[in-house]
Amino acid sequence: MKRIYLPLIISLPLLIPSFVLGQTTPISLKINPQRIESRIAELAKFGRDSLGRGYRVAYTKGDVEGRNWFIGLMKQAGLNPTIDAAGNIIGKRAGKNATLKPLAFGSHIDMVPDGGNYDGCLGSIGALEVIDVLNEHKLVTEHPLEVIIFANEEGGTIGSMAMAGHLTAKGLQAVTQSGLTVANGIKAIGGNPDHIQEVARKKGDLSAFLELHIEQGGILEKETIQIGVVEGIVGIEHWEVTVEGFANHAGTTPMNMRKDALLAASRFIVAVNEVVTSYEGRQVGTVGKIAAQPGAYNVIPGKVVLGLELRDLDYDKIWKLFRDIDKKASAIAMATGTKISFTHQPNPAKPALTEKTIQDKIVASAKSLGLTYKYLPSGAGHDSQEIALIAPVGMIFVPSVNGISHSPKEFTKAVDMTNGVNVLLQTILAIDKAK
Amino acid sequence: MKRIYLPLIISLPLLIPSFVLGQTTPISLKINPQRIESRIAELAKFGRDSLGRGYRVAYTKGDVEGRNWFIGLMKQAGLNPTIDAAGNIIGKRAGKNATLKPLAFGSHIDMVPDGGNYDGCLGSIGALEVIDVLNEHKLVTEHPLEVIIFANEEGGTIGSMAMAGHLTAKGLQAVTQSGLTVANGIKAIGGNPDHIQEVARKKGDLSAFLELHIEQGGILEKETIQIGVVEGIVGIEHWEVTVEGFANHAGTTPMNMRKDALLAASRFIVAVNEVVTSYEGRQVGTVGKIAAQPGAYNVIPGKVVLGLELRDLDYDKIWKLFRDIDKKASAIAMATGTKISFTHQPNPAKPALTEKTIQDKIVASAKSLGLTYKYLPSGAGHDSQEIALIAPVGMIFVPSVNGISHSPKEFTKAVDMTNGVNVLLQTILAIDKAK
Repeated sequence: MKRIYLPLIISLPLLIPSFVLGQTTPISLKINPQRIESRIAELAKFGRDSLGRGYRVAYTKGDVEGRNWFIGLMKQAGLNPTIDAAGNIIGKRAGKNATLKPLAFGSHIDMVPDGGNYDGCLGSIGALEVIDVLNEHKLVTEHPLEVIIFANEEGGTIGSMAMAGHLTAKGLQAVTQSGLTVANGIKAIGGNPDHIQEVARKKGDLSAFLELHIEQGGILEKETIQIGVVEGIVGIEHWEVTVEGFANHAGTTPMNMRKDALLAASRFIVAVNEVVTSYEGRQVGTVGKIAAQPGAYNVIPGKVVLGLELRDLDYDKIWKLFRDIDKKASAIAMATGTKISFTHQPNPAKPALTEKTIQDKIVASAKSLGLTYKYLPSGAGHDSQEIALIAPVGMIFVPSVNGISHSPKEFTKAVDMTNGVNVLLQTILAIDKAK
Repeated sequence: MKRIYLPLIISLPLLIPSFVLGQTTPISLKINPQRIESRIAELAKFGRDSLGRGYRVAYTKGDVEGRNWFIGLMKQAGLNPTIDAAGNIIGKRAGKNATLKPLAFGSHIDMVPDGGNYDGCLGSIGALEVIDVLNEHKLVTEHPLEVIIFANEEGGTIGSMAMAGHLTAKGLQAVTQSGLTVANGIKAIGGNPDHIQEVARKKGDLSAFLELHIEQGGILEKETIQIGVVEGIVGIEHWEVTVEGFANHAGTTPMNMRKDALLAASRFIVAVNEVVTSYEGRQVGTVGKIAAQPGAYNVIPGKVVLGLELRDLDYDKIWKLFRDIDKKASAIAMATGTKISFTHQPNPAKPALTEKTIQDKIVASAKSLGLTYKYLPSGAGHDSQEIALIAPVGMIFVPSVNGISHSPKEFTKAVDMTNGVNVLLQTILAIDKAK
């Protein structure tokens, strides 16, 4: 199906109004859909596990190989790429006005184990495509441009966290999926953890940061919308929930004498769903992990530990939901003769809002390209949420087929990738002009 | 508290009506409560793990040591103990009438890891106490008597299963808690797996089998009843239940687009409880184990596997409950966009009813001793359920403090143990007289 739409897109030269580029005649900027698609496929070859599954996990051999391939393309594009102390790859393109702060854009190329080929990769390859198109048209922007490929996004937005200035010494000692500590992982990709503080940028150091990304959810596809205008990246809070009952013989303990921790936990999980869906809005709440002890057919569970996650763009709403859940938990504990307690987990992610003026430019770009759009939050975390601490950010989403992500089934149609890169390019040009 | 009651019991000679023993004068038979208590404490010393916890697991060194101690006591009591090919310890005492089939009683002395000191041990030490009291009074019963200490009860009533004639070659190869196969475990305790078939008894080989046991539940204690008259040992059926949803990103998947296997599983667990408690009766239903995949805070579970157990004395009722649960599962699957399937597990335990005429004699014995009694099912499995296949059986329960079993907290008061042994003795004498 995807190729049916391609000719329409390819044959549509972008008519850039003269004022955008400060030039007198409209210029048609042609995104190259085949180049994007083939680069997605090439990058996908780097980093495989023994079963042939995608395993370009940050700091592994596959990650290094994928990064080297990308660095090669950046060199071809004249970006003079360098690796900062956090392992972020940074390519620079001079602007007409060296006094302006750089306009940055990019994403990441590391993946989760057995992950997909679009998450991060589209934004990275799309950023390079923008540079290639500018090069092909010999266009120079007012602002210096920076393409940033952040290191280890999937392991906790480590590279962007360093750039935002709050990667701690403790964070550097955390063990990553690769088996290496963050510090040793950074060394493995050419960074220098001893100089991590030098990576930090101050507020105002960047004019703006833009990230194109697959939605990783199914809203755009379901509503047949082409472009998502991200309002912000949701805040995330985790609690470890412990339900304590009394383990006892499942044969000899009558139903009315039980303190069944798993029954109480089940009522709790149902209650979480009820609370989260009882309010209007796009908040989500999930119990994704559970362990029951002792865990046998013939023993009533005495203890259950589960993981509760709440996400919303509105931080106060997260806590309002939690208070409701806590109240329901008390009632369940009372009714089941159990005790339910919550341990709030460290490293919460505060909501990060995108810049309203950039949202407006994304909308204007989509409109000028004849694309449908919709405002939506990003339910997933992204490097943009870190960079939002030091710069105005904007995010552009394109549809994910069946809303699937972090899976080999992750897929975005070429036509949607092309639309996204076109909007990214247009928005960059619009910001460049406006500043 | 427990010693407060002891003098009352000790000072109460049992007046056995003359017709019971075929003699002309009543005889007072004195159970020795201190002997029972001290033997329980002595046996508890055999088989400890490195942390000092009870670990007299079948076929281990501790099991062998405990058995040897018990065999020594049997020898002192003149029982000429032997070990059969399944490892069961059998002590015999001649009766007046050698043509009568033996009247057997006993239990087991192996335990679950970190188990308690009363489960099986009371019935074993109580059986020996009956012999000691008969010896002290130089009483000879009409029937030959057999004290049977079954091997490896906790690992699946292995010794009694062999005696009932259905321990299979496959069963002999199963690996036990001890690390040994059943066959090698049997060798370790002096049995001979090659001759296992010789252990089997035919219907009619035993006049009856009686087992005294702790309740392992809290009904007797809660209702302050002294003696439980066991109506039968419940049937047990297990199903592995698989809930299949779709694993997806917990941040990017809106609540109304989820196929959350754990939410569906939670509704299922609540439904199991609703179904089981919706009928009058003493049936029990338990979900004791659960695993959710992939099992992370930030991923909606795509698959949940859990264990369902149903128990009742009435086999048809178990399946009626299952049909109700299956129906509710279909509705839950429909409502949550998941699939719920059941895999019935092999090795079900059919209900085993005790002999009505023996129940009557247990009741009469309790009444004659001025003890309160209650009919109840055994929710736990016992050797008696195997022996019920080849002989009329009876079971006597005494209260478990707080209903706790399979735990170091397992405890039965000395006064209750004494009551139980008195009822066992009286019932043996009543059966002996009646036959």
